[in-house]
Formats: sequence, C-alpha cells, structure tokens
Amino acid sequence: MRPVVRSGEPKGPSGDRVAVEEPLEIRVAGDVVCVTMRTPGHDRELALGFLFAEGIIRSVDDVGSVAHCGAPGDESFGNVIEVLPGAGVALAPERVEGARRGTLTTSSCGVCGRASIEDLTARCAPLRDDTRIEAAALAPWFASMREEQRIFAETGGVHAAALFDPSSGHATVREDIGRHNAVDKVLGALVLSRALPARGRVLAVSGRASFEIVQKAIAAGIPIVASVSAASSLAIDLAIAMNVTLASFVRAGAMAVYAHPERLAF
Amino acid sequence: MRPVVRSGEPKGPSGDRVAVEEPLEIRVAGDVVCVTMRTPGHDRELALGFLFAEGIIRSVDDVGSVAHCGAPGDESFGNVIEVLPGAGVALAPERVEGARRGTLTTSSCGVCGRASIEDLTARCAPLRDDTRIEAAALAPWFASMREEQRIFAETGGVHAAALFDPSSGHATVREDIGRHNAVDKVLGALVLSRALPARGRVLAVSGRASFEIVQKAIAAGIPIVASVSAASSLAIDLAIAMNVTLASFVRAGAMAVYAHPERLAF
Repeated sequence: MRPVVRSGEPKGPSGDRVAVEEPLEIRVAGDVVCVTMRTPGHDRELALGFLFAEGIIRSVDDVGSVAHCGAPGDESFGNVIEVLPGAGVALAPERVEGARRGTLTTSSCGVCGRASIEDLTARCAPLRDDTRIEAAALAPWFASMREEQRIFAETGGVHAAALFDPSSGHATVREDIGRHNAVDKVLGALVLSRALPARGRVLAVSGRASFEIVQKAIAAGIPIVASVSAASSLAIDLAIAMNVTLASFVRAGAMAVYAHPERLAF
Repeated sequence: MRPVVRSGEPKGPSGDRVAVEEPLEIRVAGDVVCVTMRTPGHDRELALGFLFAEGIIRSVDDVGSVAHCGAPGDESFGNVIEVLPGAGVALAPERVEGARRGTLTTSSCGVCGRASIEDLTARCAPLRDDTRIEAAALAPWFASMREEQRIFAETGGVHAAALFDPSSGHATVREDIGRHNAVDKVLGALVLSRALPARGRVLAVSGRASFEIVQKAIAAGIPIVASVSAASSLAIDLAIAMNVTLASFVRAGAMAVYAHPERLAF
C-alpha cells in the first residue's frame, strides 16, 4: 500500500491507480538498439513500430520473430524484447545508434533543423497523396480517441495516438506514457497487419506534434497529422517540406493548420 | 510566411507564434554525448544540467569552459555546444553512453524498474532532508510559474520547470519543448550559481513526473517534487525509495501525494 494522501479530490476517477512506467529494452539479433521508458502492453507493436520508423525493418517480411526474452519469473521478464531477422534478411541496427548519437547528421553538414530536414528529404521523397477530408471531422475523431483512452481515464497520466481511416471510420488507438511510444505502437500494429504505407489516413496525437512525430508519420506514409496541443517549429518545417498536412490545437470549431491545408475542406 | 489557416480562434494569444524546436548536440572534450531536441536559449545551463544529472560533472569546478562551437554564420552555429574539463579534471562521458544503451543496467540484473531503482540506491543514499512546507503553498507557486512561462503564453507549446525556495519565495523558472530539458536548464542554473545541492527546495514541473524527473531531483538533492499532471509508477517507487516527497495533480485545494507526505503540512 502506497502512502497516498489527498487534500481534496484526486483527478482520476479511481484515484489511486497510476500510469505504469517500466523500461523496455529492444534488441535486434542480440544487439541492444534502445531502452525506452514505456507503459507495458503492445510491446511487440512498440518494437516493430520503432524499428520501422527508424528504417531498420521495411515490413513484417523482414522479421523472423519478435518475442520477450527470458522466462516468466525472471525479474526482468517482459522488459526485454528481441527481434530476429527473417530468413536471408540482414538488419542494420547500427543505423539507430548513429542516429541517436547524432553522428549521421554531424558527419555531413552540422546539427541544425534544416540539416535534419535535408537528411530526410534526401532519403525519402515528399508524400504524394491527394486525400481530402472534412476539417470538421477531426474534433469528433479526437473525442472518440478520448473514449478509447482507458488507461488515461483511470490514471490521467498517459498519452495516446490514433490512426483514423476517413473512409471506413475505423480507428486504431494506442496509449503509452511516452508520446513517441504511443505512435510507435500504432505503427507496429500497421506493420503486423501489413497496412503500410497508410495512405489516406490521419494520425492523431493527444499531446504536441514535434519533429519526431511528423517524421514517424512520413515513414508510415500518413498524409495528415493532427494534435490536441501545439506543433513545434521543426515539425511545421518538416511537414511543409514533405507534403504532410499538420493541424494543431484541434477543438470543436477551432484549429490551427500549419502545413498543407489543401487536404482539409472547411 | 507559413500557410496558417484557422477555423475559429487559435489557442495562443498571438496565434501564429510557434514553439521553436532545434537539435542541440552536447559534446564533452570533442565527444558527442547526446543530441536533444530543445527550445534554443539557456543552452549552457541545459548542457551543464544534463551533465550534472548524468554524473559527468559534480560542480562548475569540473568545467573549464562551455561554449557553442563554430562561428556565427555557420548553418549549425548555436546548435552544438562543447564542454571542456577544467585543468587537471578528467570527465567520463562514456558513462552517458552506457546508460543510454542500457548496458549499465543489463550487465547486472536485467532491465526492470526495480533494477533501475536499485542501481540508483546503490550509487547514492536516500536524501536526508527534514524540510517541511505548507501544502497549500504549492498551488500558488504553480500559478506564479505559469506567469513566468512567457514562451508558453505565446505558443501554448512548451513545458516548464521551476525551483522554488520556500524560505525566500525566490523561483528559478525555465521553459523548453522537452520536459527533461526544462529541468536540466534549472539544474544548470544551480550548477553555475554553485547552489547545489538544493536542500529545502521544491522542483515543480508543468507536465508529468516520470522516473527521470525524480532522478534529476535526487541528483540535485531536491527533497520535494510537484507536478501539474500525473506521476508514473516508477517515479513513485523511486521517490519512496530515495526519500523524496512527490505531489501530483496539484490544484488549488487538491493534490495527490504519492510519496513521503511528512514534508507537507495540511
């Protein structure tokens, strides 16, 4: 029993439930490529989505297996996950290491937002996607995402990301204490269901839209990114350069569209 | 001019100002120890606070110089900062690399929250600090922090961290698009002013209290951490183990205290 003291009413409906945060070590063929603090659950999706966004895997065909290491009962069981390549596939996790340390960027033209964007535009072409949706549809989608945020409803302490399909109305919602992890879980679900690239879809995030969120959307071929909260300068610049629509501060009857408004019908 | 389209009123008072996000590469004696996406400003504090929290520097006496690399006019000028050791000092940035890759943890007992906490408790003793403050003082401090959040007021897109001194009422407030960066900037200010350890002080954060936020407070000797939003399970476990008071969802007349409430007088 934790010493919980409350002066007044706590925020979460059930009060003393808190968002779980645990490290997850992601290994590729024995090499540790990252340790992320995440909310347990959908770990396979998290690992595959992360590796997809980093360009380590291109599809589920590159993957032989993805499974937690060790045995139930080990102290760390559940917090280490290993991805093994498929037969005849060579994965190159050192790309992640270089990117994390910044050596990929600094080896060429220095560290700056423009260099980061130029690096991306050199590796992938701007999205070609003439999707057009009703701008007024965004706010109700956020409302439906909120209804799916079961951990948030209990704890008030986690982010969410959702992929909406405007044509079918179908949504894939994932939650995590880390903003990026929630998006990686969505991407991992798309990897597993062979639903990439996700043309014509909308990626909604419960928090801010930063550079890395837009970067992940581009990797997944998602043409529209929408956020409840703000967008950063670099997210906007990247969205403009890569032909991604970026809408922020989405509310009923209000939003700020910072890039490629032509996909939104007002 | 960015293509800004608004359906209704944007959130920020000035509307089209957005939070700036740019990479900062932190080098120690030529070695890249990290690249973080941050809001420019207080970069020297950010670098020193990060290195202090990671245990790379113990005080400003370990530092010979801290300055941006290159020359004004270079594309990346302002986004690379180098810390050089003081005379006779050897800094060990490979500690950061090990910690980032998780090898420090996995070499011993696996990746799990308990292992992370045990690693910390093995390296530093629980805080000894019998500070006691009025719980009712927290909400007004958050209100005053909010008044200092100039970038947030203009953009709605950045986090803040503040160090409050209950005896003097003095506050050090820093903003950044990254939660951890805002705390690192506060710690860096303390490094530069030789105000560490920050006994008797309160660290307030505008977002959630995660493991790393509590970890940074412990490094700085701060006995009380308060957050506007939720606390994670691992943050709570760490605060309990290291004798840090942790109060979350702080509102006027309401809060949830998850660890060591004895420092708060209700």
